[in-house]
Amino acid sequence: MIRVGVVGASGYSGAVAARLVESHPRLSLAFATSDKLAGESVAAHLGLAAVAGADTSTRFVPNAAALDHGDACDVVLLATAADVSMRLAPAFAERGRTVVDLSGAFRLEAPAYPRWYGFEHAAPAWLGRAHYGLPELFPLPRPAPAGALVANPGCYATAALLALGPLVREGLVEPAGIVVDGKSGVTGAGRQSGEAHSFVAIDGDVRAYRVLGHQHTPEIVRALSRFAAGVKLTFTAHLLPVARGLLATCYARPRAGTTAARVTECLHAAYAKAPFVRVVPPDEARLSRVVGTNFALVGASADEDMVVAVGAIDNLLKGAAGQAVQNLNVMNGWDETLGLAHLQRVSP
Amino acid sequence: MIRVGVVGASGYSGAVAARLVESHPRLSLAFATSDKLAGESVAAHLGLAAVAGADTSTRFVPNAAALDHGDACDVVLLATAADVSMRLAPAFAERGRTVVDLSGAFRLEAPAYPRWYGFEHAAPAWLGRAHYGLPELFPLPRPAPAGALVANPGCYATAALLALGPLVREGLVEPAGIVVDGKSGVTGAGRQSGEAHSFVAIDGDVRAYRVLGHQHTPEIVRALSRFAAGVKLTFTAHLLPVARGLLATCYARPRAGTTAARVTECLHAAYAKAPFVRVVPPDEARLSRVVGTNFALVGASADEDMVVAVGAIDNLLKGAAGQAVQNLNVMNGWDETLGLAHLQRVSP
Amino acid sequence: MIRVGVVGASGYSGAVAARLVESHPRLSLAFATSDKLAGESVAAHLGLAAVAGADTSTRFVPNAAALDHGDACDVVLLATAADVSMRLAPAFAERGRTVVDLSGAFRLEAPAYPRWYGFEHAAPAWLGRAHYGLPELFPLPRPAPAGALVANPGCYATAALLALGPLVREGLVEPAGIVVDGKSGVTGAGRQSGEAHSFVAIDGDVRAYRVLGHQHTPEIVRALSRFAAGVKLTFTAHLLPVARGLLATCYARPRAGTTAARVTECLHAAYAKAPFVRVVPPDEARLSRVVGTNFALVGASADEDMVVAVGAIDNLLKGAAGQAVQNLNVMNGWDETLGLAHLQRVSP
Amino acid sequence: MIRVGVVGASGYSGAVAARLVESHPRLSLAFATSDKLAGESVAAHLGLAAVAGADTSTRFVPNAAALDHGDACDVVLLATAADVSMRLAPAFAERGRTVVDLSGAFRLEAPAYPRWYGFEHAAPAWLGRAHYGLPELFPLPRPAPAGALVANPGCYATAALLALGPLVREGLVEPAGIVVDGKSGVTGAGRQSGEAHSFVAIDGDVRAYRVLGHQHTPEIVRALSRFAAGVKLTFTAHLLPVARGLLATCYARPRAGTTAARVTECLHAAYAKAPFVRVVPPDEARLSRVVGTNFALVGASADEDMVVAVGAIDNLLKGAAGQAVQNLNVMNGWDETLGLAHLQRVSP
Repeated sequence: MIRVGVVGASGYSGAVAARLVESHPRLSLAFATSDKLAGESVAAHLGLAAVAGADTSTRFVPNAAALDHGDACDVVLLATAADVSMRLAPAFAERGRTVVDLSGAFRLEAPAYPRWYGFEHAAPAWLGRAHYGLPELFPLPRPAPAGALVANPGCYATAALLALGPLVREGLVEPAGIVVDGKSGVTGAGRQSGEAHSFVAIDGDVRAYRVLGHQHTPEIVRALSRFAAGVKLTFTAHLLPVARGLLATCYARPRAGTTAARVTECLHAAYAKAPFVRVVPPDEARLSRVVGTNFALVGASADEDMVVAVGAIDNLLKGAAGQAVQNLNVMNGWDETLGLAHLQRVSP
Repeated sequence: MIRVGVVGASGYSGAVAARLVESHPRLSLAFATSDKLAGESVAAHLGLAAVAGADTSTRFVPNAAALDHGDACDVVLLATAADVSMRLAPAFAERGRTVVDLSGAFRLEAPAYPRWYGFEHAAPAWLGRAHYGLPELFPLPRPAPAGALVANPGCYATAALLALGPLVREGLVEPAGIVVDGKSGVTGAGRQSGEAHSFVAIDGDVRAYRVLGHQHTPEIVRALSRFAAGVKLTFTAHLLPVARGLLATCYARPRAGTTAARVTECLHAAYAKAPFVRVVPPDEARLSRVVGTNFALVGASADEDMVVAVGAIDNLLKGAAGQAVQNLNVMNGWDETLGLAHLQRVSP
Repeated sequence: MIRVGVVGASGYSGAVAARLVESHPRLSLAFATSDKLAGESVAAHLGLAAVAGADTSTRFVPNAAALDHGDACDVVLLATAADVSMRLAPAFAERGRTVVDLSGAFRLEAPAYPRWYGFEHAAPAWLGRAHYGLPELFPLPRPAPAGALVANPGCYATAALLALGPLVREGLVEPAGIVVDGKSGVTGAGRQSGEAHSFVAIDGDVRAYRVLGHQHTPEIVRALSRFAAGVKLTFTAHLLPVARGLLATCYARPRAGTTAARVTECLHAAYAKAPFVRVVPPDEARLSRVVGTNFALVGASADEDMVVAVGAIDNLLKGAAGQAVQNLNVMNGWDETLGLAHLQRVSP
Repeated sequence: MIRVGVVGASGYSGAVAARLVESHPRLSLAFATSDKLAGESVAAHLGLAAVAGADTSTRFVPNAAALDHGDACDVVLLATAADVSMRLAPAFAERGRTVVDLSGAFRLEAPAYPRWYGFEHAAPAWLGRAHYGLPELFPLPRPAPAGALVANPGCYATAALLALGPLVREGLVEPAGIVVDGKSGVTGAGRQSGEAHSFVAIDGDVRAYRVLGHQHTPEIVRALSRFAAGVKLTFTAHLLPVARGLLATCYARPRAGTTAARVTECLHAAYAKAPFVRVVPPDEARLSRVVGTNFALVGASADEDMVVAVGAIDNLLKGAAGQAVQNLNVMNGWDETLGLAHLQRVSP
């Protein structure tokens, strides 16, 4: 069993990650940190008490104790804020631990951090070493060397890149003038209190947020730029009155010869061997088919003016914790779906 | 009192229209048609029984009897399917009735109907006579001559045009390459049964629909083309898990000199005297502030690559029945907010 | 115009009350207090800017300034916590103002306060003078004398009493062993932040709360005890994933001769002249028909073992602010529906 | 592997049952019937394509072909209407198949069927042979003999019996005058179309249904009567605006000496060895902790007048398909949680 520590296990992504680790046939939960829940039973909090073989004696430890537990684990999943991950990830990696960071701390280049994350990057040397963990588009080291650092993609970036990536890579669309209109359930913002996140404020409401200023913009641009020069992209995030699920509707101008049939073929070819990506008509890439699972649904169409590509994921699974486990499966050379295939969608 | 007949009063828009008429100080409900509810009390069905002075004796009449009641009304509101409105509207107008049609039957030019609505237009001569009823952008005849026909705008078109119209008109954005990403509550599709519209299918789900084929696309293009040549626009509709409310997020390339400040000023100038349009930051143009009211909230921002403009409305009020009443107010020379200002938003 | 001050106007009930006052033909908003919004425009915050004749210059004043504005009003509506109302209400009443208190500060007898509200009552003499403001069951003074104090009923109490009151009064059910199972939207708890009230925590969840300890229990018992001796009642509150609306399902043992037909007749007779109460079959007393309006729907059935009576209201209107305005209408001798009849239900 | 056929696999419960079978380590899906989906891929429809080892070649067969596939299975799960199950179950059982019937066809005694289910029972001899499949309260044969028939409990009955059963059995409450107030998500009614089940009709609504006439009433009475004589019980079902989840709030008069502590102890003792039942404070028995899992949460409190006991389950899992698989686990002598423990709750 590979021993996994989860740092920040009381947030939404961290809690889902801890559950996935605990129920994974080849991973075991070495420790879980949470200041809020320090001293409480991990199994009880995560609702894992009935899992056959679940260790019900493990207690949450404070976040500050994370590094002290470094020797107790082979892998650490960081479900922490970007500025915390920026310091913890190198510390764990330098001890030879495999690190999967769910924050944005290692997704951009150093100069981008002050503008998009509000801080100077404290470990810029690690930015070049980090592997962007979207295995359907970017290869991961297999097996992972000691001290490998994976920058797990952002939720919006995952959906947008899965929908757009092959089209940009194969030259079917112009790299400039791309629009990504993203819509996410509220867990995408992390565990929040405050009246703005109250049921009364969110139910029945939809709105854009961080217009022209969302930090997933440079992340998507950077990833697409590995496929084509001259990427320019506008991204708008919207908050939906759902707990989980994310849809990215992407618009790009077609190059000569690009047709609806060709964009669909392109997606099919790109994901023929990807167990977690399904190509469907764009109006069937919907939240209800993915929420509760690690699947992404993507679909695209085109006319003479525009290519429209849609991607749908569960933001906590394929958009965060599920993708982290998938990345561990890939780097260990296991079946990519191990510990993830049993997840059943919420919509009956 | 102006006597108003509502045809198709059991649909969502028709029912809201009938309530607005009944509670309007200068309008009275002359008749209401519904095959499903024929013979039943209008006041009871609409929950109007307690309105002081409400006429509780009126019964729904069958749709086929609408024209027989033509002499009993001064105005007719058609909340009928486009192919039905196409025949009824001229018949009422030719008798000198003012007609406000909530369908798309008179919003396009004749050649567009087979592709976008699936039928040849049976009254093409009336297309040129119809007034597009978005009074904040397009003047209506005041007073309305006998037999005036108003094509009440589509819900997506209303939100998109209020957000984009002034920017196109004032030359702040390129007319080509516009993207409108619309998100609507399910009442936008009219009263529906069928499992696809069941609570279980819709709750927690979000999806695009009619990708590259929604009939509001040519409507928005036609209206914007009154402001600029060369409009090219891609529109995608999405279905939200909310009953009411619609958001249009619009993307257009800025012309030289266009800044965030200038687009905001442009909207403020355009709507300085519009009682139902409020200009706000784009992330405050949200459903919760408009649902239950006839208000539209619009907001825009810009960087060097893109102008993003957002419009939010209640699809049944400013996007349908409320706008119809507003149009009647305008054409009668009344206060534009008469019978509409008392509407209070649902979100407390 | 009667001038009304609203104290605590940034809470849900207070904001709804201020809107109702502003749009009422014979009431005007004298002042509105809110610490959070002090200095901001009342009209802007309440979305009233478009109301014809709305005063857009009024600003919120701090709560502590409420009494300083006592001379500026004829009536004060207190949308404050019970311990605040307990002190403010007598102060205003002693100056001759009519006071409608939306809290529980004047609904019980003095000895009940420590157990159910956690404080000794500071103005016990006023408890006997307060009028319980449920006008369909308990008469209010008409006209109200100077300094009249109305204890506006709790939301659960309103629904339960409207459903059960006539049955207890007419002796159709045993007064002992009554069960009230209440289900309320989350606005019933007032404006809340905190993760427990977040969208993620509430959406899809339903739970009981304050089991065997909810403060509306003694309120319902006290009111029913005006109709019969020996009332014993168990009340359980439940939190629903809806913003507005409340259902009370009430169970009482039938007395000899009580049948389904008789309980229905009893309700019809009780509410024949009540403009805001409609008697319907019990499965039609549902939230969707009342939310957004001041109506209560009640219905009952019975078999040999049990009478089941259901009441449905909008907790912010008939359960709080709407009822407060209705009480003002009654005490002023106006049409009971004045300023309330135009409210249109949210569900189309 | 035990081969399981699922009849009626396109309904909500049937689809969940088929997924559970497919992902169970000792069960395999022998066939699945559905008239609507006949000929389509089972794995594709159920979203199982990525399950390691999932058989992607299986197609739905028409319901009428179910019996023809009897030899291909060891166990049949009937997710069919009661009148269909009434005929199919004996036919399969007589061939020696183990039958778990999710309908109400074998839960009552013969004379009750005309009143509660609207038909005369066609196989009354089997009513006495059927095992009521609530293994925490009623033992199942272990191992199951050939041709065993399990009447899987109704969803409301499961929640109510788990909360109330031990209290009645241990004599802590009076068996007469019990009230069960049930609240269920809309999947409890099965897959429905029709405007009454549309999103617009259900969202924001709550209502009682089948007041004094719900068919789970005699089922609960019959099961409790195995513990005490003189059971009299009133049950009211309510429809919630959630897809999944069910809460039963139960009221019973305490016997002398019954206290809050004793009812809690009683529940703890009853479920000490039940892996899927957790005893919690009654306000923590909430939907969000059980939806997506096979767990039931129960809690109770008491004062001198009343015992209040609450039970919460996922109506499709512990209330239907999950319980069916649990029953198979028990009858096969396997770990009771096999194939069920991995289910993770929806609420993060």
